[in-house]
Amino acid sequence: MMQHQNPVEDAFHIRKLEISDKEKGFIELLRQLTVCDSVSDEKFNERFEEIAKYGDDHRICVIEDVRSGKIVATGSVFIEKKFVRNCGKAGHIEDVVVDSSARGLQLGKRIVEYLADHAHSMGCYKVILDCTEENRPFYEKCGFKKKEIQMVKYFV
Amino acid sequence: MMQHQNPVEDAFHIRKLEISDKEKGFIELLRQLTVCDSVSDEKFNERFEEIAKYGDDHRICVIEDVRSGKIVATGSVFIEKKFVRNCGKAGHIEDVVVDSSARGLQLGKRIVEYLADHAHSMGCYKVILDCTEENRPFYEKCGFKKKEIQMVKYFV
Repeated sequence: MMQHQNPVEDAFHIRKLEISDKEKGFIELLRQLTVCDSVSDEKFNERFEEIAKYGDDHRICVIEDVRSGKIVATGSVFIEKKFVRNCGKAGHIEDVVVDSSARGLQLGKRIVEYLADHAHSMGCYKVILDCTEENRPFYEKCGFKKKEIQMVKYFV
Repeated sequence: MMQHQNPVEDAFHIRKLEISDKEKGFIELLRQLTVCDSVSDEKFNERFEEIAKYGDDHRICVIEDVRSGKIVATGSVFIEKKFVRNCGKAGHIEDVVVDSSARGLQLGKRIVEYLADHAHSMGCYKVILDCTEENRPFYEKCGFKKKEIQMVKYFV
């Protein structure tokens, strides 16, 4: 089937995380988001397999810059199974980040839409995420609305 | 081992959700939280088994009123496996509710502490939840601090 894509879509390929993405700068990208030391191949592979066990219930997506072969954006969503809402499901979006050199290309929006679409296709009645007040306008452009406040308790 | 418990702890037993809790008012309790129609035994059992597959990664706890045999409080936590924070884990607390007839007995605090302790024991570096501004003081008493804002997109 012929697909008409725009130049940005041709140059930036969105797909599921693959185990080989560790060699494509995936961990370095996450470092732009929060604390993440270098991760050994063994530890990476172990975590990759743990997450893979959840199948479609935990999806990590990435955008690869086709020219450089680097991962320039990522985000994850996992599907929580509930009893409320008539045994409904809720999607939780986490760890969305776009490489600082690739801003302004709507890659963040593509990531969030991909993750929200995945949650929808899995039968979720809603998808939620936490963000700073500063990032609120971005998520509003993605169709989200502010609802509650996030509370956190750190153990370390 | 002798355990010295106070009268409230004797009268209200905290434990994991059991499949027989559907007969003890578990679904009716959830209705005080959000939309939840009556759930068939088949649907309940199916969802119970789906969640049970996650083992310690998805814990639902309940408090049973020993005298009445009714479930009067509940809450859940699931453990998200991440790559950030050196392949860290985050606990997500959801669906905390205390029966309107059992308020003022610190049952909500016991539920939240149980869930936070579970996340900690599973190796999480943090535990998070979303709540209304109105419930913020309660969660602050449980050791939580406000961090970000929650954004939501509904599909139904």
